[in-house]
Formats: sequence, C-alpha cells, structure tokens
Amino acid sequence: MRTTTGGSGTGHREHLRALVSDDLLSRVAWSRLVEPGDWRAAALIGEVGAGEALRALLDRDVEWMARYRARVAHLDPERDLSGAQRVGGRVLLPSDDEWPASLDLLRAPPPCLWVRGPARLDEVLVRSAAVVGARAATSYGEHVATELSCGLVERGFAVVSGMAYGIDAAAHRGALAGAGVSVGVVAGGLDRAYPAAHERLLHRLAESGAVVSEVPPGSAPTKGRFLQRNRLIAACTTGTVVVEAAVRSGSLNTARTAERLGKPVGAVPGPVTSPASAGCHALIRSGAAVVVTDAEEVAELLGTMGADAAPLKAGERRITDELDPLATRVLDALPKRAGRSMDRLCDTAGLDPASVQSALGRLALLGLAERDGAGWRIARPAGPRVPDYARQAAGVVRGDL
Amino acid sequence: MRTTTGGSGTGHREHLRALVSDDLLSRVAWSRLVEPGDWRAAALIGEVGAGEALRALLDRDVEWMARYRARVAHLDPERDLSGAQRVGGRVLLPSDDEWPASLDLLRAPPPCLWVRGPARLDEVLVRSAAVVGARAATSYGEHVATELSCGLVERGFAVVSGMAYGIDAAAHRGALAGAGVSVGVVAGGLDRAYPAAHERLLHRLAESGAVVSEVPPGSAPTKGRFLQRNRLIAACTTGTVVVEAAVRSGSLNTARTAERLGKPVGAVPGPVTSPASAGCHALIRSGAAVVVTDAEEVAELLGTMGADAAPLKAGERRITDELDPLATRVLDALPKRAGRSMDRLCDTAGLDPASVQSALGRLALLGLAERDGAGWRIARPAGPRVPDYARQAAGVVRGDL
Repeated sequence: MRTTTGGSGTGHREHLRALVSDDLLSRVAWSRLVEPGDWRAAALIGEVGAGEALRALLDRDVEWMARYRARVAHLDPERDLSGAQRVGGRVLLPSDDEWPASLDLLRAPPPCLWVRGPARLDEVLVRSAAVVGARAATSYGEHVATELSCGLVERGFAVVSGMAYGIDAAAHRGALAGAGVSVGVVAGGLDRAYPAAHERLLHRLAESGAVVSEVPPGSAPTKGRFLQRNRLIAACTTGTVVVEAAVRSGSLNTARTAERLGKPVGAVPGPVTSPASAGCHALIRSGAAVVVTDAEEVAELLGTMGADAAPLKAGERRITDELDPLATRVLDALPKRAGRSMDRLCDTAGLDPASVQSALGRLALLGLAERDGAGWRIARPAGPRVPDYARQAAGVVRGDL
Repeated sequence: MRTTTGGSGTGHREHLRALVSDDLLSRVAWSRLVEPGDWRAAALIGEVGAGEALRALLDRDVEWMARYRARVAHLDPERDLSGAQRVGGRVLLPSDDEWPASLDLLRAPPPCLWVRGPARLDEVLVRSAAVVGARAATSYGEHVATELSCGLVERGFAVVSGMAYGIDAAAHRGALAGAGVSVGVVAGGLDRAYPAAHERLLHRLAESGAVVSEVPPGSAPTKGRFLQRNRLIAACTTGTVVVEAAVRSGSLNTARTAERLGKPVGAVPGPVTSPASAGCHALIRSGAAVVVTDAEEVAELLGTMGADAAPLKAGERRITDELDPLATRVLDALPKRAGRSMDRLCDTAGLDPASVQSALGRLALLGLAERDGAGWRIARPAGPRVPDYARQAAGVVRGDL
C-alpha cells in the first residue's frame, strides 16, 4: 500500500478538481483509477474526455462509477508523473504522434501509456511481431523463440513480448542479439521488474528499445493485469506468433485477441509429445493460426504482401528431377557395374527398344548413362545417381543418418 | 534375370494365346507385362478385358504396345501363380468380392493384386489409415508412429504402410503391438523382403494381417515401383497420415495422391529444428493436410462423422474457471496471509464496497475466501488458488517444471 501525499479531505478533492482542465493529468489519474480493460471508463472518456469524466466522478453520484471511488483518496497524478520521470519514462496520450494508432481498435484502449526507452512506438510498431509463449517453456521453445526474434529483427521487424520467464525472455534476448528493437510490455509499473530476475533485461530494453505499461509506476502486476497486458501486445503489433503454449497458456489469449482484431496469427509446431506445444497445435487445428517454422515464414505472414514472400521449402534440386518419365524408368533399370544389353534393358524397364534407345541418348548427354561393352550402365563417377531409397536405406543401416 | 520355361518361340506364343479366354491368367500376365501405374494398359484392359488386350498384344502390331513386347518372351502366368501359392499367397481380381473397391478410383488400377495373409482386404480397408513417413526417421517420429498405430488399431482401424525402414516399420510394429490388423504394401514381389532386415516383419504381417503387391512374385522393388506403391497405399485406405517427412520424402507423394482422390490427409507436426518434419509442416502450411497430434484426432479425421469426434484439448478444469469477472478480481486482490480490510480490498481491486462484499460472499461459499480478523484473505488450505503465473514462475525458478 502506498503512503501518499493525497487524502480524502476537502483539500485533496479541490486539488483534483483543478486538474480536470488538464488532459495529461486527467488521463494519468484515470490510469490509476481503472483496472486495465475497463470498457465503461474508456467509453466515458472517449465520449466526454478524461477531464469531464474525472469531474463526473468527483462531483456526481453515478452508480456504476462507485468502483472508482476507492482509489480517489490516494489519487496523485503529479506523483505518478514524477515516478515515471525518475526512471526516464514518459507518458503517451492518444493525441500524441507517437501513440500507436492500432490501440484504438481495442474496446478499452488505455487512458494513457507509460513508456521508457529510445524507440518511438509509432515508428517501430508499424512493422512488428508479437513473439509470445509459455513461461514454462522447454529449451526447444526458447531456442526457437531466440532464433525467430533474431531473424525478425534482421528483416526489420520490432519484436514485442511480455517480460515473463520462458518464451518472452527468449524473444527479447534474440532481438537484442540481433541488435534490433525489442519492446517489453509489462503488467505492472514500468519501474518494476517482474520477475525480479529480469531486472537486467528490463534495463537493456529501456536502454535500446522500449518498456511499455498501461498502469502507473509502482503498480503491482496482478493476474488480471497480465491478461489485459496480453490484449495490449496483440493490439499494438502487426501480428502475433505463439512459440510454445500449453492448452491453458495466457499466450493463447494474446493469439485470440489478435485474431479478433483481424491480425495475422502464427503458431510454431513442436513435438506432439510435448505438452508445451499442445496449445500451438490446437490453435492450428482450429484454424486460428497458421503454421510458421522460421523467421522467413513469419515475415511472410506479417509483412508486406509480395515483398516478404517466403520461398517454398523445396530441398536441393537434382539433375534427375528434370528427367522425363521414360528416361527416369530407363535410368532406374541401368546396372551400376557391368553393362546390360538392350534386350534386358527393355525387359527390366518394361519398354520397347525405340523408347529405351532414345532415353539412353538423353541420359548419355546428361552424363548419367554410359556404354559398357555391348550394353549400358550408370555413368561413373556416381554422384546422386544411385537411387535415393537405396542410399538412404543404406545410410540408416550404417547409422549415418 | 529369370530363367524360365517360357521362350520367344511359336510354341510359347501358342500357349499364351490359349490363355486369353481365362481372365485370371490374362490379368496375371498383364501384371508381369506392365510397370505399375501404366494407365494406357489399364484403359485398354478396362475397355476390352484383359484377355482381349493380351490377344491384341500377341497378334497385332499396335505401335504404343511395343513396350510390352520385351517381356512377352518370359511371360509365364502359371509359374507366377504357383510362385504366389508357394508362399501361401493369392491373386485378387477386380471381380472378386475381396477386391478393395476404392482402387478403381485410380487412373491405372492394377490388373490384379497379389496378397498374403488372413485379413480380408475389403473388410479391413473400409476403416483403415495409411501411416507413412520417412525412412530416415528420428526416434521421435518412430515413437509417434508406433503410438499412433497402436491407438488406431484400438479404435478399430487397420493400419496400412510400406515396409521400409523408419516410420513404415514403426507403424506396423505399433499395430502389431496393439494386436490389430496391419497391411504391408510392398514395391516388389510379396515373396521378397525389402529391406532384407524386414524379413521377420514380413512374416508377421503375412501371419496376422496382409502383405499386398501389384507385381508378381520375384519382382524387384525398383524406384518407379516404390512411387507407384505409394499411390496404392493412398487409394486403398480411408485416409493418410504422414508422421515424419523431409521436403523430398516419397510419403509426400502418398499424401498428394490421397488428397487428389478426395481422401483426408493428416500430418504430425514436429520440432521446426528437425528436417525430418519439414515436409509435414509444408503439407500443413499448403492446406494439403491438417494437424493431427494423436490417434484420437486421426480417428476423427478418418472416421465416421460424430462417432469418432475428438474432444477439444482443454486441460484440467479448475473451480476458478467458473468465477464471474468481479469475483476473479476480488480473489486476485486477496492476500495469502493476514486479512485485508474492505477499504484496502476496494482500492486493490479497483471496485466499490458493494461489489467487493457480494464477490466475497460468493468466494466464501465456494471455500475460496475466508475472514481473518477484521479483513479477508484466501481460504486455507490453499489448493489451486495461488495465482497460476506465480506458481508457474516459482516452479521455473525452482526448476521443478
């Protein structure tokens, strides 16, 4: 509990009444009065402005506003402002150029945003990916989140995530490793590291990217605020990628919000034996997310159409891919060692002499077949000409695959 | 090369001419003459019958039939038949009740099928799953294929696969472990184990399930026959599941055939860091396959609508799931130890006294809140009431998650 300069006396109320003409201080006041996601307060503020809404709370006995009265006694917007300034933070209002416009898609946009760090939110969030997932992540999930984020910042995306253990922290670390912009959206005040072990990470983001909160400095990260923080991550980014999520993970909530806002959602698959991936698989099965397996595919999902298109995964091309079906069949019938006669080639391939003859001509031109005595065989030195299945099976037996 | 009783002489041709009135022997002859997947021969046989088609080959000089002539010299259907009988095999014709009707969906259905084993194909294939995948499988993939097949036979599905290393063999072993019916479709003759290391597996399938081939006994498994074997697996089953597949795996071919035939296709996801799963992810990304993570979901995909529906993965239900939003917020504001006063609860939860009072009443009824002195706290003994994120984060720190 804060011990404050405020109070419930008449002097305090008079002081607050004087603030209603100031949009900044009125919004900062509402930031303290409401819990994140409060759509009734948001609607009122949107309708009459933060100052008028504050005046209504102070002067009129509106029944549904009763819930905000408990916090009026401790309300001290100037103190909250200086609390932010003490850690180098600033306050963004919807009227500011830096305000992320997509937050206005929300049913309950925050009255203001508390921000630390050099990144200009409006500029970096226009090409940004929410990389979210389980706190109880596996080393696989953390590895993928790190790689993904590193690849995304290399492609000019800002990475946005919470600051929790597991995928969140791995996402930020990947973005920092790629010398990119990483934005941490926290559930408590931007002066508080939660978990405490992430104090250093919080400072790195505040130095090179941004830390964002919708509650005033000093606020505790409560369960409800974590859930609402997720809606903020979904709303402020171009799209969301879930790396690992159990079936009850809060990051599924982020994904659902992104989907509801019409933003692209990707999910990274994992072993079906891993409960940490079950939520991702459920998202994909339900059609709420598409499969993404690397930064290229995420960039395609979130990026500018065409410019960010990911190439199809096709594997190494081989000269034998270009062969017509008859030549493939004759190649398949050629022996590796002693040459085989035309008659026997026709029999093995199940083809007439004219077809075999012409196929051999094409194979010889490509360096795939050669004469051997009276017959034909696979040309040496053998490259990728040994049939694949034989090579692979042999590899499995030898244990070298 | 076979050394046979046949020959290119007039006597041999006369003998063959005498066969054309016999549908069985004529089809067995075509089974030797064509390579699997030959749609021209299939169309002719479908049009005029196997006997008439054989007569045309023997007596007329049709240009496109030249390719079949190379094998006429060694043609000996009676020997092929007795070769099958020697290993307890039988020949199925399209006119037989046991013929799998869905093979007629193919552009080039085989002239006949060579079958070993007690399973009646028409009966077992009506509820069957092709479980296919990479030869170069990982232990993850083999584990999943085994579990999946075991779960499928428990749900009354026959499992159908090739007999290769990796996923194929794991699929059969899982089905055998579940005491179910497993059908091995081989690329060579049904008397030949390929790879040789699977001789024992071949015998187990021949004893308890079935071994199926479209080429006569003694035939070698060539590359082209492997590809055509895949089309047979796709066509004879209710649907196909790919467990692990690299981007160039032949099992993608099976999946594409199944898709073309309008059959459901599932793919099992895996680590995005594993090339052995890249083909599965590509199938899912392209929309050719849906994600399946266990036998229940495969059964839903392939099974009777409704009867085989898989439950949504929802995780354990908790009493707190049922709480209304206000009660959740108040529960979130309750301290674990010393009771908190009404005033402070209102402040922490951001709610008015009436709302907090009524929420506390509901929480107390559910055994989630209790009085402590003049205030309220979370009821003991604490069950699932500690907020999840705190428990999980603590677990991560302690390393017990």
